[in-house]
Amino acid sequence: MKRLKERIVKDGKVIGTEILKVDNFLNHQVDVPFIDEIGKAFYELFKDAGVTRILTIEASGIPVAFAAARFFGVPMVYAKKFPNAVKDESAEHLYQSEVYSFTKQASYNIRVTKEYIRPGDKILIIDDFLANGKAAAGLADIVHQAGAEVAGIGIVIEKGFQNGRQTVETLGYRIESLAIVDSMGENGIVFRE
Amino acid sequence: MKRLKERIVKDGKVIGTEILKVDNFLNHQVDVPFIDEIGKAFYELFKDAGVTRILTIEASGIPVAFAAARFFGVPMVYAKKFPNAVKDESAEHLYQSEVYSFTKQASYNIRVTKEYIRPGDKILIIDDFLANGKAAAGLADIVHQAGAEVAGIGIVIEKGFQNGRQTVETLGYRIESLAIVDSMGENGIVFRE
Repeated sequence: MKRLKERIVKDGKVIGTEILKVDNFLNHQVDVPFIDEIGKAFYELFKDAGVTRILTIEASGIPVAFAAARFFGVPMVYAKKFPNAVKDESAEHLYQSEVYSFTKQASYNIRVTKEYIRPGDKILIIDDFLANGKAAAGLADIVHQAGAEVAGIGIVIEKGFQNGRQTVETLGYRIESLAIVDSMGENGIVFRE
Repeated sequence: MKRLKERIVKDGKVIGTEILKVDNFLNHQVDVPFIDEIGKAFYELFKDAGVTRILTIEASGIPVAFAAARFFGVPMVYAKKFPNAVKDESAEHLYQSEVYSFTKQASYNIRVTKEYIRPGDKILIIDDFLANGKAAAGLADIVHQAGAEVAGIGIVIEKGFQNGRQTVETLGYRIESLAIVDSMGENGIVFRE
């Protein structure tokens, strides 16, 4: 998505070689018309995938998933995140999965109430960033627990220098990223063609 | 908002006399066209208030604030929440405020990067629930730190049996709630007229 790459170059802040902050339009301040364009781009990519529901994870995935859901005409669900990795074993009304965060060097627990993903659902997973793919894989795990199907994974910005794509493709999912960053640093941001 | 009250009666789950869960359209699964109606209702209430930016708090305020921001044609900003109440004193780029949660009987810290609220901004604060008003007051505190003005506070569901309205009105803010619940329990949900 050309406009996204231009926006990342204009407004993204690169810290070192691994951190890209896009706080002024995507995940702190939110540029609503631009996020709507991103939502529409996901619709164009996945409109033939039979999507019945969109699943993301709080908090930064919510605006993009909300915008996309409008174009698909389906509900959006956001998984809730709990800092303690331990599953709540007494919570029979929840699907839960453990996600390892390389950034924080610790695991967290994600949860979705069972009634919001149904057997037969075709779920489009959407997130703002893909790095190591652990969050996307955790969401896909929840979809499978529900007896539903992953229609695809839509990512706004993929860190192409990390192994997230390999992780989710090995699991057999179609992944589409609107911008793939191959490297960052003093020489600027290099996107994959 | 009549349609909201009807939806709360239809889909809300009352637990005891104080907890109302609206997980199936507002804060876990999100009914996008309905949230857009809510966003439009806030626009109708505050369209003459000169709003330049909308401020909410992660995660459950985001869909409503996003929907409202589209109608106002302004950016949306969400404050980030940190479970540790201690301020990061080294973080000169942040506005921070402490919020006490009665539910959790503990304080947390909310943060907004300084460049996303500017002196002269007229900020509409939006949140999904109002209970004791501490979150809204914390957001208003951040607006004042920034030298900006609170244009108003828009709430989807107010727990009228708690003192949130008094808290924010004492601080001098205009508050508008789309539904005010005066009591809940075995006899159902009673709304304020």
